[in-house]
Amino acid sequence: MNEQTKTKFNEIRKVIDEHLDKYTQVKYPENIYKAIRYSLLAGGKRLRPVMAVEAALLFGAKQEEIIPAACAIEMLHCQSLIHDDLPCMDNDDFRRGKPSNHKVFGEATATLAGDALLSFAPKIIIEKTPKSISSDIIILLLNEFFTAAGTEGIVSGQIVDIESEKKKISKETLEFLYEYKTAKLFKLALRTGAITAGVNSDLLQNLTLFAQYYGYAFQIYDDILDVTADIDIIGKTPGKDAKNEKSTYVSMYGIEAAKKQTLFLCNKAYDILKQEHINSEILEGIVSDIIAGICKC
Amino acid sequence: MNEQTKTKFNEIRKVIDEHLDKYTQVKYPENIYKAIRYSLLAGGKRLRPVMAVEAALLFGAKQEEIIPAACAIEMLHCQSLIHDDLPCMDNDDFRRGKPSNHKVFGEATATLAGDALLSFAPKIIIEKTPKSISSDIIILLLNEFFTAAGTEGIVSGQIVDIESEKKKISKETLEFLYEYKTAKLFKLALRTGAITAGVNSDLLQNLTLFAQYYGYAFQIYDDILDVTADIDIIGKTPGKDAKNEKSTYVSMYGIEAAKKQTLFLCNKAYDILKQEHINSEILEGIVSDIIAGICKC
Repeated sequence: MNEQTKTKFNEIRKVIDEHLDKYTQVKYPENIYKAIRYSLLAGGKRLRPVMAVEAALLFGAKQEEIIPAACAIEMLHCQSLIHDDLPCMDNDDFRRGKPSNHKVFGEATATLAGDALLSFAPKIIIEKTPKSISSDIIILLLNEFFTAAGTEGIVSGQIVDIESEKKKISKETLEFLYEYKTAKLFKLALRTGAITAGVNSDLLQNLTLFAQYYGYAFQIYDDILDVTADIDIIGKTPGKDAKNEKSTYVSMYGIEAAKKQTLFLCNKAYDILKQEHINSEILEGIVSDIIAGICKC
Repeated sequence: MNEQTKTKFNEIRKVIDEHLDKYTQVKYPENIYKAIRYSLLAGGKRLRPVMAVEAALLFGAKQEEIIPAACAIEMLHCQSLIHDDLPCMDNDDFRRGKPSNHKVFGEATATLAGDALLSFAPKIIIEKTPKSISSDIIILLLNEFFTAAGTEGIVSGQIVDIESEKKKISKETLEFLYEYKTAKLFKLALRTGAITAGVNSDLLQNLTLFAQYYGYAFQIYDDILDVTADIDIIGKTPGKDAKNEKSTYVSMYGIEAAKKQTLFLCNKAYDILKQEHINSEILEGIVSDIIAGICKC
């Protein structure tokens, strides 16, 4: 994305960071708050909450109306990373360039920090969303949240991911993984923003489709980086997929096909924006970042 | 409780069991549903959901209005047991007389089954509660649920429990543990029932106090059983507290003082029922069961 868009993105990101900090002030018992804050305030890109804020603003909601739900989505993302990194799951020692949560706080506290975030997040939506957003909308947002979080979302993505290790998987299973492990949270982000702004038409369906194309492109690009980049760039241990014998688009079809597919998906995402006359520097910018990344690989 | 009350209790329990079964029908990916059902349908006493139903009926709600939220509370209870039993936590191989979830499905799936239940439960409240219950009440119920589930509830209870192992703890820490690990879920049960029926006065406060006395009594009785009973009676490995060097009322004050304190708390719980003119066979019955148990020890 260009400098102007980056500045706009970072302004929203700063507000998200400030609120994540404010929402999780340390109380007794201190260790659980410290563990939550360690991972939550570790300087992620805040892609998902920024997307939620952008969608809300695009369709007429005020920033303060979406900030709590946007922060809740980042909390859910953080919860899934903490639990995914556990030794019994992906067993990853690094995340966002720092030792993973369980390496610092131990497995028990890391497990509980994830559990805590799954309750923290909906409470933030309930308690911090301004009264200008109706109870019916709040319930819709919570329902979207738990659809993305549970068996209809990332939990099922993670379980199929674990079951697929060291196995040859079908194209359908690979697509299931991309959908449930990755795209669901991007869908949640855009839908949360749009629903907060009162969008409930075909537009919502098409935003969901944008998130799907973007999510698949994001994940294939992530798989490419796992093969080509080093730890300084991706902030987590590279070569993990090969080590865990995980099937990815890259391992199944090769790097060149993966790059081509990513670009194809990015163009499909652009098409949706054009079709719906959505004029969003940020949504265009996050797609262009993937394209730029692919061209550098 | 007498035979008539037991019959009434079991009738509600049967409805709870039927709904838990219905709500968790196996879909793809099958293993996560199987893991959830393994622990959820393992034949628990259903004390908490029955308490929720009883409170709702006492104050004028219909049974179908409370069943979804009552089932959600049992799901939360089940989630906490699955995660507490993990090797990194209490490392317990048996629960409800069967191998623990992680012994059957592995640690990764057990962790994810717990995560899934934390999303499953609120979705059941949102999607299955009849429309006769307003959106505002649904939000109150969800807020109560997440207060009991997260850092203001059982997560903090569990973290302090783990941090207290192999340490001499204060009376205040012991009370924190009883409150956050045990009483919070009983409070949630009665409050959920009462709020569904529209109760929001001093009565709600006193029901909460009943749940506190009952919860403390329940936990001290559980600690006594851990020392005196065998696995056939309690369905989990006995002697765990001593093995894990956990402080309990029993280890701190001795068995006789623990029995005396339990009876004292049971009488305080009875007093609340009398004071509020609550004529409930079931609430009286669950207190009398603890008294009868203490007398047999």
